[in-house]
Amino acid sequence: MKQSDKITTLLGGGDDGWGIFLKSRRMIDDGIDVIELTVGEHDIRTHPDILNAMHKAAIGGHTGYAMVPGNTDLRQAVAARIQERTGVPTTMDNVLITPGAQSALFSSHLAVCDDGDTALYIDPYYATYPATLRAVGAIPQTVPAHAVDNFQPRASEIAKHAASAKSLLINSPNNPTGVVYSRATLNGIADVCREHDLWLISDEVYDTQIWDGEHISPRALPDMAERTLVVGSMSKSYAMTGSRIGWIVAPEAVIENLINLATHTTYGVPGYIQDAALYALGRGAPLEAEIAAPFARRRAIAMDVLAGQNVVKHVPCMGAMYLMLDVRATGLSGEGFADALLEAEHIATMPGESFGSSAAGHLRVAMTIEDEAFREALTRLVEFAKGLAE
Amino acid sequence: MKQSDKITTLLGGGDDGWGIFLKSRRMIDDGIDVIELTVGEHDIRTHPDILNAMHKAAIGGHTGYAMVPGNTDLRQAVAARIQERTGVPTTMDNVLITPGAQSALFSSHLAVCDDGDTALYIDPYYATYPATLRAVGAIPQTVPAHAVDNFQPRASEIAKHAASAKSLLINSPNNPTGVVYSRATLNGIADVCREHDLWLISDEVYDTQIWDGEHISPRALPDMAERTLVVGSMSKSYAMTGSRIGWIVAPEAVIENLINLATHTTYGVPGYIQDAALYALGRGAPLEAEIAAPFARRRAIAMDVLAGQNVVKHVPCMGAMYLMLDVRATGLSGEGFADALLEAEHIATMPGESFGSSAAGHLRVAMTIEDEAFREALTRLVEFAKGLAE
Repeated sequence: MKQSDKITTLLGGGDDGWGIFLKSRRMIDDGIDVIELTVGEHDIRTHPDILNAMHKAAIGGHTGYAMVPGNTDLRQAVAARIQERTGVPTTMDNVLITPGAQSALFSSHLAVCDDGDTALYIDPYYATYPATLRAVGAIPQTVPAHAVDNFQPRASEIAKHAASAKSLLINSPNNPTGVVYSRATLNGIADVCREHDLWLISDEVYDTQIWDGEHISPRALPDMAERTLVVGSMSKSYAMTGSRIGWIVAPEAVIENLINLATHTTYGVPGYIQDAALYALGRGAPLEAEIAAPFARRRAIAMDVLAGQNVVKHVPCMGAMYLMLDVRATGLSGEGFADALLEAEHIATMPGESFGSSAAGHLRVAMTIEDEAFREALTRLVEFAKGLAE
Repeated sequence: MKQSDKITTLLGGGDDGWGIFLKSRRMIDDGIDVIELTVGEHDIRTHPDILNAMHKAAIGGHTGYAMVPGNTDLRQAVAARIQERTGVPTTMDNVLITPGAQSALFSSHLAVCDDGDTALYIDPYYATYPATLRAVGAIPQTVPAHAVDNFQPRASEIAKHAASAKSLLINSPNNPTGVVYSRATLNGIADVCREHDLWLISDEVYDTQIWDGEHISPRALPDMAERTLVVGSMSKSYAMTGSRIGWIVAPEAVIENLINLATHTTYGVPGYIQDAALYALGRGAPLEAEIAAPFARRRAIAMDVLAGQNVVKHVPCMGAMYLMLDVRATGLSGEGFADALLEAEHIATMPGESFGSSAAGHLRVAMTIEDEAFREALTRLVEFAKGLAE
């Protein structure tokens, strides 16, 4: 029986970049004590206060079908958060609650791309991006960002592909690089979008984890609200990864159609999870800061460990929960280094090549283990690199 | 800014059949005491034992990313349930856990239909079907089932469209008709699928609510497991509608690709909801019977109310939570009758026309209000019909 071309070619063939990750998982399954620096997830669990709010809602009877666009109070709370932080007038009619940011990314692209349309995204990229675009039926096209530019994408390179494209997907603060796009970068991107009539899909799930610079949502730039779909989530900002709740903020006319799409693809998000999210957003910035604090501490540890040596360089670590290391001085590729490090030191990292070709010779290190263990692992990584470079 | 054709044409234009429903909601908003017989949802909430199991899992730390295909123990439990009830060998590799049956319907069709492929479904149909097929990019094509056949579809009519189609979607026990497909009906459908190499998508979300006849999964018929995708859910069987958890049971090769699709469209189902579902499935048939009991009682009430008169006929009420009434003897359409009933008696029902053209002149009555209120509403409905018919 023949399955659809769309589903059988979803991954696009070729190496999916998860080789080192899977190897580390096999080693762990074999009982080897591997230090895991691959996973983009907090080492804490969801705050019990949030879970208690969820249980109260569930036991209180919020177990039936919730409204497909999201509960009114939650949509209003998300709108208020966005308006407060970006200054852009935003109402609940600009908000769709989604079962997580991945669903939001998929739905956003489906809203603007038809089969065969070209959808741009920046390399290096979060691992799910290309197949998400393929799932929509779009043709994924990368635009490289360069290590020499600290992975801030150049508007001129986006412009080269813009004439034949329908949309551009960006992500700041960025996974995997940890870079926060500057105002200049975002202004350049906005110029290209306006000039070439591109939709901009802005993945801002790390918006509460900023160590350097400021988070600017491109929706706040002149005339950009009408062409920007912002993807947000409770996952990273409130350590609610497993609860699968996020949102799309977009023009009302897009949200109206996205509600129809949601009716036919997911039929909404559990009401008690929405109530838990509403409770968490009520706690707001102080709780967000508490969730972000460990990554800020570990970033400081990393700066300390990396100081005074030149073998392992780092990309400016401005936000999100990742540290992007440049290991080209060792003479190895990112993949070669990650594999050797895993074999010799039992430390698992993600090769830059897992996120496209632009981050070749790099490693993504997730700052998602306890502080002192992180310091020790990073110290061993640096020593290992020094040994290779000699 | 131009949105995608797919999303702007999702609803297919024309009347969406929800006019009476929305009118009743407006009346309720205006403070009018409307008796609601439109909603396919239990009048009880999720059992507190299930919610306590969920909270225990959440507080116990199951709040991080769950495995995208579903937790191993839950996939095994679903496989065991299916194998036990159908006799078809089924393992966890045949199971994908989904965020509800609507997501399962969408993903199942995306797995077998490419853009422009024809996807068949039976009229009368559940309201989301046509736009679900459009969301995938398929061309929806109805095959009528007829009141004179008690809405059992004819294989010969499916065969007329089968040569140019890729898939067929069926639903037994059926929403909106309450009919359970007979073995003869399902054998006929299976013959057409095998002869014309059709994928069969079998929506079996009401499989625990059978009042007459037996539930036969077409996956259990000869050589059908290889071409059948079964959509199941905790929603109706365990009164967990708002928890958005369901599954697809399909050939391993399809599940493998569906897991890739899930990674890029939803990224899995909350782990604590999976744990709640596992707990509920552990309670199994006795709890399912408890959830189904009110509908069985109300069906008996309906048979009692409808006896001894000939104006309001009923389609054999064999399963699910609906009663399909034939009001053609009043001289009105289903829509006309439903509107008049709402205006005069403040009783809201769904016109058969909301579910396609085959159920014209009918009403779908959801048996989802308390027994004595249901008896009274149905009694008033019959008296109202008698008044019209005189």
